[in-house]
Amino acid sequence: MRKGQLTHQAILDESVQLASRLGLLGLSVGGLADEVEMSKSGLFAHFRSKEQLQLETLGHARRLFIDVVVRPTSSVPDGEQRLRALVDRWLVWADESLGGGCLFVAAAVELDDRPGPLRDALVTSERDWRGLLRSVVQSAVDAGEFSAELDPDQFSYELHALMLAYHHSSRLLTSREEAAQRTRSGLERLISAARRTG
Amino acid sequence: MRKGQLTHQAILDESVQLASRLGLLGLSVGGLADEVEMSKSGLFAHFRSKEQLQLETLGHARRLFIDVVVRPTSSVPDGEQRLRALVDRWLVWADESLGGGCLFVAAAVELDDRPGPLRDALVTSERDWRGLLRSVVQSAVDAGEFSAELDPDQFSYELHALMLAYHHSSRLLTSREEAAQRTRSGLERLISAARRTG
Repeated sequence: MRKGQLTHQAILDESVQLASRLGLLGLSVGGLADEVEMSKSGLFAHFRSKEQLQLETLGHARRLFIDVVVRPTSSVPDGEQRLRALVDRWLVWADESLGGGCLFVAAAVELDDRPGPLRDALVTSERDWRGLLRSVVQSAVDAGEFSAELDPDQFSYELHALMLAYHHSSRLLTSREEAAQRTRSGLERLISAARRTG
Repeated sequence: MRKGQLTHQAILDESVQLASRLGLLGLSVGGLADEVEMSKSGLFAHFRSKEQLQLETLGHARRLFIDVVVRPTSSVPDGEQRLRALVDRWLVWADESLGGGCLFVAAAVELDDRPGPLRDALVTSERDWRGLLRSVVQSAVDAGEFSAELDPDQFSYELHALMLAYHHSSRLLTSREEAAQRTRSGLERLISAARRTG
């Protein structure tokens, strides 16, 4: 047992890592207590239920994602340049942030057929990410970098697709380098098509 | 308890459905026994361990995939036409075959960091599918439908990406119709770029 107690934030850091390996649905207060070497009763002072733990863990993962992916690009000029910066940071997120892979990709598979507050929170989070990509694409259109005929929703769908393929390939089929190269080639093709037309 | 026993194939049909909902790692001989209303000891005559059940379930899902997706396209002329037929059949697979979503997409997330025979079987299966797509793309190149400069591996990576995005979006973010339309638009863009160049 630890001397002293971890802060709520430090416990959530551990919980996000655990969920990355076991899935959000694999999280439990008892399992996390073992992981952080705290008593189960001590941890119940932080999370009254498994559901609360899962929801707070997803919310914490979302804050981490913003810190790692979104915030570092906030001073990059909007449009194509920021789009490239977001993809670069997303690749860092996928490779380095969580030992067991992207929590959101895993949660999508776990929660897609489980209605409830946890699925709702995930849907909000995924929509926000897709919405951010869309708005950055729109700003590239507004700046004249991309064609006025471009459909920003279609572009962000395809960009998101390349990210899902990176996660799948780099963890299962090929080296990270090969998967990153294929995702970047796909991005170049998307961008050069976006310059010409929708 | 059922009167009479299910055949091994019928048990595997149920097991694939159960794994679609719970994940391959969520399968157990006891859980499946409840599902098919057989005794656990009766089911142990079919599967001596959870691992054997999981491996056979993955193998059975693979045969189903071939029946639903690949075989109906075998008489379609090779090249672009067969590629389109495979995408059509894959959308049917994603929508209709398994109640809880594509077993292979879910298994990729479950198994990516779990070395062992089950992960090996999944990797083989995913490589074979990507390899089939690649060979059909190559035949479109050979027939002069696609540019000789096209990289078939890159094309099949991006096509696979669109399928992963379809699974994700249609189950979590948008209607099936919208996700299918976005995936088909992405395919058209891929094909028209493939006609011009690599």
